[in-house]
Amino acid sequence: MNETELRRIDRTVKQWLHMSREFILTKMQQNLKVATKTSRKDLVTNVDKENEKFIINKIRTFAPDSQILGEEGFGDQIKSTKGLVWVVDPIDGTMNFVKQRDHFAIMIALYVDGQGVLGYIYDVMGDELLSGGPDIGVFQNDDPLTAPENINLRDGLVSVSGPMVVHNYRNFQKIADASSGLRIYGSAGIEMIHLLKGEIVAYVSYLKPWDFGAGKILAESLGLKVTTVDGKPLDMLSSDFVMVATVKAQQDILPIIGSNV
Amino acid sequence: MNETELRRIDRTVKQWLHMSREFILTKMQQNLKVATKTSRKDLVTNVDKENEKFIINKIRTFAPDSQILGEEGFGDQIKSTKGLVWVVDPIDGTMNFVKQRDHFAIMIALYVDGQGVLGYIYDVMGDELLSGGPDIGVFQNDDPLTAPENINLRDGLVSVSGPMVVHNYRNFQKIADASSGLRIYGSAGIEMIHLLKGEIVAYVSYLKPWDFGAGKILAESLGLKVTTVDGKPLDMLSSDFVMVATVKAQQDILPIIGSNV
Repeated sequence: MNETELRRIDRTVKQWLHMSREFILTKMQQNLKVATKTSRKDLVTNVDKENEKFIINKIRTFAPDSQILGEEGFGDQIKSTKGLVWVVDPIDGTMNFVKQRDHFAIMIALYVDGQGVLGYIYDVMGDELLSGGPDIGVFQNDDPLTAPENINLRDGLVSVSGPMVVHNYRNFQKIADASSGLRIYGSAGIEMIHLLKGEIVAYVSYLKPWDFGAGKILAESLGLKVTTVDGKPLDMLSSDFVMVATVKAQQDILPIIGSNV
Repeated sequence: MNETELRRIDRTVKQWLHMSREFILTKMQQNLKVATKTSRKDLVTNVDKENEKFIINKIRTFAPDSQILGEEGFGDQIKSTKGLVWVVDPIDGTMNFVKQRDHFAIMIALYVDGQGVLGYIYDVMGDELLSGGPDIGVFQNDDPLTAPENINLRDGLVSVSGPMVVHNYRNFQKIADASSGLRIYGSAGIEMIHLLKGEIVAYVSYLKPWDFGAGKILAESLGLKVTTVDGKPLDMLSSDFVMVATVKAQQDILPIIGSNV
């Protein structure tokens, strides 16, 4: 895909995101319809669903030959990563959206033949959009974002999934202890933004493709490591225990996680 | 203290806070001098110290007969709560200040004869000031803040000190599990702001007087409960395990904490 084409797509996706944000802000004035999915802590609202339909419609009109993977199931069943594959999370951090009316994100990713091309994480209430990819660089709204410093675990803050640190999955408590401190924001998109800006040095959690699709592209474009918690490559169509970290923090965390196997 | 006097103090403290914020923003352009206090996770910087001196000087000029309790030790040794007692935290969340350059707060509280009169929590980077007290109400910048809904633990998010949840102090892990989700922001001031705005229903941590001085006044003014984790009254001059919560969340948490004694 040439740069002209990339930039055309980039401008278009940003337009969708701004429309999508306006849509969500309007819907927040009305009563939410909240339902549970796999557990009482896994929520979905009418706004998640309507916003996913909105974004998917935009993609289908713009690039009809695409495959689309959407959190709320309005996309396609994807078996192959051939061609254009879009990954859509209409509201990441639905619990925050429902309980805080803040600290949630819209995320869109574009993969071509399995390679990450463009990623978008939009902090809706903060009106902060992290966007870009390996070919055009990473932006914080309109400004180029500098790659975060390569800081080790001991000297950095970490984010770990709440339930996983509480139940000490794979020695996650030891990761928190070994760091400068534990932070939990409750939305993969918001944690990724903190990581991309260098505010935390690692984020570990169980994530689904729409949770890490955009973050993986942006993080790798800035030299961060995005792997399974065992340091293996991620399959973009599968859910897994994911670690996004600076090079040094990844090296610090891998032996901690390994020692509990 | 009559309302005219209260409002005069309120206007004055807000002026100090805005000057203090400008001072911090200017100092953030320069290299920080970072030192550790009780452990590698307990930091202090030159900006903490200089800002405390700035605020304490303002108080001494404005109300010379005051006693002042300051985190960095530039205030007084206080033995009695008689008269005007000011509690100052020049930068709450110093780890966030150092590592994130964001998510920290200036906090000032005024007690008269042991009673909380005025409290201030200023999210410096967010430029969001929570202020007020029992007599004048609570404000978010210039707008009156509505009391948070009285939500129970199961239906709300909670904040718990990172090390305490990792090491399951007083069943804190069970509190996290029983809630809708765990959030950790790393600054008592920032957690208090989330609580005052109704974004979390409880916050439990080990706190020093300057960590809870302002938050206690603001939280109680909005009908929240501020006690030790055992439900006992807080001594404003002592450090303790503190719980700030909605009435319902406090009732839910007390038996959980008790069951581990």
